[in-house]
Amino acid sequence: MSFENLQKYLIFFSYLGKHYKGVQSQTRRIPTFETIGVKTVKEDKSIQIQLEKAFNRLLPKPKNEIKVGISSRTDAGVNALINSCQLSLAHPIEGCYYIPSHIVKTANDYFLNHNQSIILRRVVPVHHMFVAVLHALSRTYVYRIAVVKKPIHSKTDVDLTSLLPIDELYRCLPVCSPQGYLDIAKMQEVCDLFIGTHDFTSFRSPQIRDTRPSERTIYECFLRFIPDTYLNGCDPAYKNIDIIEIVIKGKSFLYNQVRRMVGALIAVGKGKNTVEEIRSFLHEPGSGKGKIIVPPPDGLYLANIEYDTNGLYI
Amino acid sequence: MSFENLQKYLIFFSYLGKHYKGVQSQTRRIPTFETIGVKTVKEDKSIQIQLEKAFNRLLPKPKNEIKVGISSRTDAGVNALINSCQLSLAHPIEGCYYIPSHIVKTANDYFLNHNQSIILRRVVPVHHMFVAVLHALSRTYVYRIAVVKKPIHSKTDVDLTSLLPIDELYRCLPVCSPQGYLDIAKMQEVCDLFIGTHDFTSFRSPQIRDTRPSERTIYECFLRFIPDTYLNGCDPAYKNIDIIEIVIKGKSFLYNQVRRMVGALIAVGKGKNTVEEIRSFLHEPGSGKGKIIVPPPDGLYLANIEYDTNGLYI
Repeated sequence: MSFENLQKYLIFFSYLGKHYKGVQSQTRRIPTFETIGVKTVKEDKSIQIQLEKAFNRLLPKPKNEIKVGISSRTDAGVNALINSCQLSLAHPIEGCYYIPSHIVKTANDYFLNHNQSIILRRVVPVHHMFVAVLHALSRTYVYRIAVVKKPIHSKTDVDLTSLLPIDELYRCLPVCSPQGYLDIAKMQEVCDLFIGTHDFTSFRSPQIRDTRPSERTIYECFLRFIPDTYLNGCDPAYKNIDIIEIVIKGKSFLYNQVRRMVGALIAVGKGKNTVEEIRSFLHEPGSGKGKIIVPPPDGLYLANIEYDTNGLYI
Repeated sequence: MSFENLQKYLIFFSYLGKHYKGVQSQTRRIPTFETIGVKTVKEDKSIQIQLEKAFNRLLPKPKNEIKVGISSRTDAGVNALINSCQLSLAHPIEGCYYIPSHIVKTANDYFLNHNQSIILRRVVPVHHMFVAVLHALSRTYVYRIAVVKKPIHSKTDVDLTSLLPIDELYRCLPVCSPQGYLDIAKMQEVCDLFIGTHDFTSFRSPQIRDTRPSERTIYECFLRFIPDTYLNGCDPAYKNIDIIEIVIKGKSFLYNQVRRMVGALIAVGKGKNTVEEIRSFLHEPGSGKGKIIVPPPDGLYLANIEYDTNGLYI
């Protein structure tokens, strides 16, 4: 299929992952009785499907099939301050193109009317050779931890959820320690270890077969403290916790690698692993495989994607 | 039904209202074909039903029917940092009572496992004469407004949603004005007008028949500015907005009264109403009825309930 007036766009959007099965649309095979066979259906609960539904509301209706190409995969429950995709649109009127602000408004109206936790940010016309996944220079992830301020020796002492501000529910990981704080100095040592190019085999899923190279480059890795003001002005539950964010920036990551890096950092912060152990996981690739707890998706945000704007933006 | 070892509890809990049809369980009448009649079912999407489901998980199973009495009604979409209810529990073992921390843990485990946006905070044993709705001394509401920092002349200029941090979606009201700010001094004048005892007929719903007295006492009414730090440490969208919270404290309120008070404050802030107009709405009860826009529930939080702890706590 070819259209004279096909325009490609780079689209930036944000979402909360809690009620979605990830960004990518999944196809599901359902047994059917009629043919004693199976049929393949697209799962409704992905960000991709919601984006495509929203773009199908464009008026006048585009002449081509709406299909977005996501730049950065995120799992079920993972949030994004920014993710991106490319989309080609063929305007039905010769010589006409869709205005970016019209695309933004149409999509956000659809999301609000359908109670979706997705916001369209910005639409940028790009060269037809542009591919969102390929032209991304880096991805930055942030993991939010809510450190409970009082010493808790076992999780049965106190129900951690009962201490969490309601605004932070499913948006951070509540963490407790016998000391009532994490060993930040040691966590910062581990952050420094991660920076640079390493074989991250130890930070691979032991279950999932993945034959891609396991060498990855980490550009930045650091801890950030959110000031101890009330983040929601009125919720006294913010007094119970300190919010710490772990920031990790790299070109690309292995499946669940960011979360395993966070898991290692938390384990060191709690004193369950030593800095030396994490160093050996990196230096002897695979030695730590399966030894790191994967924290839940709730606290994870894809926070930024950098693009090379040279030549491909129009 | 009477039980020897029936213990009454005052229970505090928080929730996000977006995916619920309000705090109170609604019964719905469904036509049935079998009897050409109707049957009454309890709606599943209320906070009350979720609380009752959670308490039904208590082990050992209570001997009495689980029925909570909510202290403060909130509409669909309204959030609560704190709401409260009373609950009586008859332990099946003679002379035994449920330990508060066990009730908290059981409920929060249920909510997390069922993706509910509810947190149980605290359980306090109370005298059997205690009634949560009656013994509340005051209720404090907070309404969050996200003021878009740049001048916007009409909503078609810019899609307001596209400027909102994803963490604030459905948790505040995005507001724009031709000046790019609200007239805070005039809003503060209106806050002062509201304080004290007034006939709030002008702030009543014109649709709903309600014969209760319309005189209400406002203890506190003020604006609060959330410091211009990144509330979520990493989301640059916080640069687009100023968060202002309107705090309103009273003993009790008419249906939608708080939201109409907020609507009046915003209208004055934008220059759509004068302080004098709002004053006349108060001084000539009913003169403003139907003239105030009711802002959406998303930004509204029930923030506190005060109790008289004298004698009724045990």
